[in-house]
Amino acid sequence: MEIKECRSTMDLTREVELTQVRYDEESRTKNRIVREVPLTILVNGTELATMLCTPDKLEYLAVGFLLSEGLIKKEAEIKGITLNEKGWYIRVEIADDDLLEEGMASKRVIGTGCAGGISFYRAVDAKDCLPLKSGVLISREKVFSMMKEFLGMSGLYRDTHGVHSAALCSSEKIEIFTEDIGRHNAIDKIIGECFLKGISTEDRIILTTGRISSEILIKVAKQRIPIIVARSVPTDMAVGLAERLNVTLIGSVRGSRMNIYTHDWRVKVETIPKKR
Amino acid sequence: MEIKECRSTMDLTREVELTQVRYDEESRTKNRIVREVPLTILVNGTELATMLCTPDKLEYLAVGFLLSEGLIKKEAEIKGITLNEKGWYIRVEIADDDLLEEGMASKRVIGTGCAGGISFYRAVDAKDCLPLKSGVLISREKVFSMMKEFLGMSGLYRDTHGVHSAALCSSEKIEIFTEDIGRHNAIDKIIGECFLKGISTEDRIILTTGRISSEILIKVAKQRIPIIVARSVPTDMAVGLAERLNVTLIGSVRGSRMNIYTHDWRVKVETIPKKR
Repeated sequence: MEIKECRSTMDLTREVELTQVRYDEESRTKNRIVREVPLTILVNGTELATMLCTPDKLEYLAVGFLLSEGLIKKEAEIKGITLNEKGWYIRVEIADDDLLEEGMASKRVIGTGCAGGISFYRAVDAKDCLPLKSGVLISREKVFSMMKEFLGMSGLYRDTHGVHSAALCSSEKIEIFTEDIGRHNAIDKIIGECFLKGISTEDRIILTTGRISSEILIKVAKQRIPIIVARSVPTDMAVGLAERLNVTLIGSVRGSRMNIYTHDWRVKVETIPKKR
Repeated sequence: MEIKECRSTMDLTREVELTQVRYDEESRTKNRIVREVPLTILVNGTELATMLCTPDKLEYLAVGFLLSEGLIKKEAEIKGITLNEKGWYIRVEIADDDLLEEGMASKRVIGTGCAGGISFYRAVDAKDCLPLKSGVLISREKVFSMMKEFLGMSGLYRDTHGVHSAALCSSEKIEIFTEDIGRHNAIDKIIGECFLKGISTEDRIILTTGRISSEILIKVAKQRIPIIVARSVPTDMAVGLAERLNVTLIGSVRGSRMNIYTHDWRVKVETIPKKR
């Protein structure tokens, strides 16, 4: 099915008038700030959630969110998506049995020793999130050059300083780029786009400007993405999960510096030869 | 009632071993990263939510969260709070009728023209969030000096770069300081502490390191706090809400520079005389 993308910086920002103080001087001026809208997701007519987001790639966001939350299955057949931009409603139509049983998505796993920082706290994650076997490699040089390119891609960040970015990459180049006020949303937009366009996320790499919490790590690992590269730092729970799920977790990438927290064997000094 | 605080940097961080790349050099080293735990909140025995947070001031976090989400009323009588640190459960006991009717908290307000960026999307917020009448003032100099002091207070940020901070201040000084991996949590910790200790939030000022989205703005305005000062930028929806709710919203505070987005009359050039 064809999904409309609403991708224009004009739509994603708003000009506001404000009082700017610079040392002893004060002036009235105008600045661009990022837009935020409350998007309500309905699946087969049932309201499931309202999320706050940047109004861009909303169809992808809705589907990515439903997949990440385990509200629709990976095998789901999406029959239609209708966005109402006036009321910020999005209606997703799926085959009846694609919806998980009620309560499953939020059900907590009890008694698995969460204190160790390596356990799942939602039943749906424990079920879907198995250790990755991917042998994909990336060169140090590519991590640095892709992060540099990635950080330069967000015109919306340049204009507003109010968004996070995420990207899906091969070992060679950036393939999908997303932005949102929420770091979770930016990744869900990638997941939704891949799902709707039939793009495999296996053996890929995720780049993100945000911090890596357990939620982000689980979201990425559930898509079978073996390498996650963040400009920021991870939490201990994210590191514990990455270790156990065989995910390579790279953080604090700044210029030609980075910290490889887990499974550093996927990062090579030399350039990785292209597959032919 | 007396609430135990678990406030120690040792408890809030974990040392991990990692591979550090610096240009052409690679070494195994150790770094401190911030801890993240899944805290499940039960009210009168019913599981209401699991949140991911930094394990500090969890009693305050739980109560602040329940108040912010409208799950307990402002007049609620809290009979007891018991934290289980092994399983990360917290049990809050309240008088039966303090719990709002089920579904209220997440119910969306329909047909109020959210596209304009100044409407509530949750019924519970529209009900509780009325325009503020506070005439409290702050001097420019105090905004700059309190932000500077505030940014220096987080030893946890210095150690890990993985947390947000928030503070409650009078026009004169910082009174409560909190930290968490989530910017929402840091503010909920303040709200919970004020509630449990009977500290009024009226005429106070909130400082935060995080961006100001509609959720943060609403959380603060519901506590009748008339001035919010952020190191980062707001969204258009937050600015629209601040305008309508008579909240002074200050963002992008860096050194002796700031942007006052709304109700700049509360910020004065000269020092505000102390009340006697």
